[in-house]
Amino acid sequence: MSSSFLKRREKVLLKAEELGLNQVLVSNVENIYYFTGFWGGGYLLLSRDGAKLFTGLLERFRAQENSFETEVITPALGVPVSSKLKEYVKGCLLADEIPFTLKEGLEKSLEVTLKVNPKIFYSMRRVKDEDEVSLLREASKLIDRLYEFSTKVIREGVSEREIASKVIGEAVYLGLDTPYVNTDFTPIIVASGPNSSFPHAQVCDRRLRRGDVVKLDFFFRYKGYVSDETRTFILGSASNDFRDAYETVLCAQEEGLKAVKAGARACDVDSVCRKVIAEKGFQEYFVHGTGHGVGLEVHEPPTISVNQCELLERGNVVTVEPGLYFPGKFGVRIEDTVYVGDSAICLTAFTKELIEL
Amino acid sequence: MSSSFLKRREKVLLKAEELGLNQVLVSNVENIYYFTGFWGGGYLLLSRDGAKLFTGLLERFRAQENSFETEVITPALGVPVSSKLKEYVKGCLLADEIPFTLKEGLEKSLEVTLKVNPKIFYSMRRVKDEDEVSLLREASKLIDRLYEFSTKVIREGVSEREIASKVIGEAVYLGLDTPYVNTDFTPIIVASGPNSSFPHAQVCDRRLRRGDVVKLDFFFRYKGYVSDETRTFILGSASNDFRDAYETVLCAQEEGLKAVKAGARACDVDSVCRKVIAEKGFQEYFVHGTGHGVGLEVHEPPTISVNQCELLERGNVVTVEPGLYFPGKFGVRIEDTVYVGDSAICLTAFTKELIEL
Repeated sequence: MSSSFLKRREKVLLKAEELGLNQVLVSNVENIYYFTGFWGGGYLLLSRDGAKLFTGLLERFRAQENSFETEVITPALGVPVSSKLKEYVKGCLLADEIPFTLKEGLEKSLEVTLKVNPKIFYSMRRVKDEDEVSLLREASKLIDRLYEFSTKVIREGVSEREIASKVIGEAVYLGLDTPYVNTDFTPIIVASGPNSSFPHAQVCDRRLRRGDVVKLDFFFRYKGYVSDETRTFILGSASNDFRDAYETVLCAQEEGLKAVKAGARACDVDSVCRKVIAEKGFQEYFVHGTGHGVGLEVHEPPTISVNQCELLERGNVVTVEPGLYFPGKFGVRIEDTVYVGDSAICLTAFTKELIEL
Repeated sequence: MSSSFLKRREKVLLKAEELGLNQVLVSNVENIYYFTGFWGGGYLLLSRDGAKLFTGLLERFRAQENSFETEVITPALGVPVSSKLKEYVKGCLLADEIPFTLKEGLEKSLEVTLKVNPKIFYSMRRVKDEDEVSLLREASKLIDRLYEFSTKVIREGVSEREIASKVIGEAVYLGLDTPYVNTDFTPIIVASGPNSSFPHAQVCDRRLRRGDVVKLDFFFRYKGYVSDETRTFILGSASNDFRDAYETVLCAQEEGLKAVKAGARACDVDSVCRKVIAEKGFQEYFVHGTGHGVGLEVHEPPTISVNQCELLERGNVVTVEPGLYFPGKFGVRIEDTVYVGDSAICLTAFTKELIEL
C-alpha cells in the first residue's frame, strides 16, 4: 500500500496546484485513511513539505503506528487539535467536505480560507487503484460467504433480529467490520414478509413464517473498503407473483450489468434496468436508482440513476441493484458490487438462482 | 413518546421565533428522529403549519409508518428531494449542522438563507426527557448484560476478533443496534495486552495470553439511544503494576462520579479525576478528557474535560471515564453512563471490582 499513499498525495497536490493552492486540509476520516492508512479523527495537512496529521493526544501512538510517512502532531490536553495547525497553514487551502460551523470556526481561528471541494477527492477515490480493488474483492468474497452462512440460519420461526445477530457475528468473525450508513440502525437489512416491501427496512422482532420473502442486504467493510450485496430468498415455495417479480428483477439486473462499461452513461445503465421492469408493467414499483459507487463509504460517487449523465470510468466500483416493492406484500432486490472495465466484472458472486429455503 | 415529539417541536419553534425565524430545517438524522420518530435520510421542515418530511420515494411508506404526525412528501425519481422544499420555504430558516457544500447548494436552489445553529438543537437534546431517560436506562441494562456475557467468552487463546464477534452478535440478539463512531471500525473496543494501551484500539487478530489486560468498551444503541460502558479485566492474576493502575483509575472514577451534579462545572469534574491520578504521579498517562454526553449520538454535548467551563444540568446524561495508558505495556479505563441529578445516578452498573478471569 505504501507507494499508493504517495501517489495519491502527489495527485491531490497537483490538483490543488492547478487551482493555485499549495496546501490541502483533509478532515474526513475516509480521506485521512486514503492518504495515510490511519483510520481516526483529526486533520491531515498535505503539502510539498510532506504529510502532517494533527490529532488528539489519545491517538498519538496509534496514529504513529498506522500512518505511512506522516508526522503526527498532538496538542496538550484541553487545547483544540486545530490550534496546532496555525503554525503550518497560510492563505487559501483546498479542503474536503466539512460541516458549515466547523469551517467558519477554523477559518476564523486559523486566519485562512478553505476552498471546500469534495468533488476533487471523490474524483480520485472513484477510480480505484490495484490495492483498493484487491481489498474490495476480498470484502466481496467474505460477503459471499455470509450469504452461504445465512442460508443455514434462515428457517421458520426464527426472528429477523436473530438472523441479523448471527450474520453480524459471523461477519465480524470473518474479519469484516461494520461500516456506517447513518440512516440505518444496523449494517444489514433482514426484511421478511411484508417488511421486505420497505427498500430500507429496519431489523425487527418479526418471526419468519412459511411462504415469507426474505430480503437480505449486507454491507460490510474489509480493511476500510465496503462491499454491498443483496439477495432475496423465499421460505418455502415461491408463489407465481413472487416468481414473476423475482425473474423480472433478475433480468433487469443482468441487463443492467451488461450495460456497465467504461464510457457508458450512468443514466443509460439505469434506463436499461428500468426498461426491463416497465415491459412487465412494474415501473411504479421500482422506487430507487439502480446503483451507487462503493469504496471507503457505502454510498459514494458515481450514482447510477435517472438524470445522472456522468460517464462511468475504468476503475469505478459500483453496485447494480434494481428492485421491486409491492406495499404491504413483498419486495425483491438483487444487488452485486462490480468493477467497471471494458465490461462489468462482478466482485460479489453468490448465486442469483431463486433459492427456496 | 407521541407527546414528547410535540413538546420538542414547540420548543424549537419558540427558539427559532426568539431569533425572528418561523421555519426550522432539520437534516441531521438524529434530529429528524428526535422530532418525528423516523430514523432515515431527508429534510424535516418544522413550522406552525406542522411537520413536513421530505424524503426519497423509497422511504415513503416506512416514513409514513414510523413518523408521528408528519406529512411525508416525496418527489419523483431523479428529482432531488430538496427540490420539493421550494414550495414551502421562504426567507431565513433556522437549521442544524450541515455540510458546507450542501448548505451552499440548498441556499442557491431554494433561494433562502440558512441560519445554521447546531447549539440550539444540542441545548435541547442534552437535557433528556423522561422517555429518553427510560430508553437510556434500558440500553445501559442491556450493555451490563453484555459484560456478564463477555466474562464467559474471554479466555486464553481466544482472539480479540472472536470476542468482538460474539459480543456484537449477542448485542444484536438482545435488541441493541450498532451506532456509529466514524473514527472506529467496530462498535466495540476489545483491546488485549499492549493493545490496551491505545485508548481507541482497533479490534485485531491477537490471541489472548495469560496475564493480559483486557480492556472492553461497548457502545450500543437501543431504539435510537446510546449507552457507553468500559471495563478492564485481567486474564489471570493481576500484577502489582496493574493493580496499582486499576485502583487509581477506579478511585478517580468514583471521585469523579461524586463530583457530578446539576450545577457543577464540567471542568471541575475532570479535575477531580485528574487530581486523584496526579497524586499517584500518573498524570502524563491520562491522555483524554473525563467524559462526554451520550444520547442519540455516542459523543454529544456536554464535554467533560480540561477547559470546559460549562455547567452540567439536571437531565444531562454523560460518561465518566478516566483511564491510564502505559505505551507498549497496558491500559486501564473504567466508564459509566450516568444521569445528572442532585447527584450522579449510574445507568450502567456492571461491577467495578477487579475481575481476574
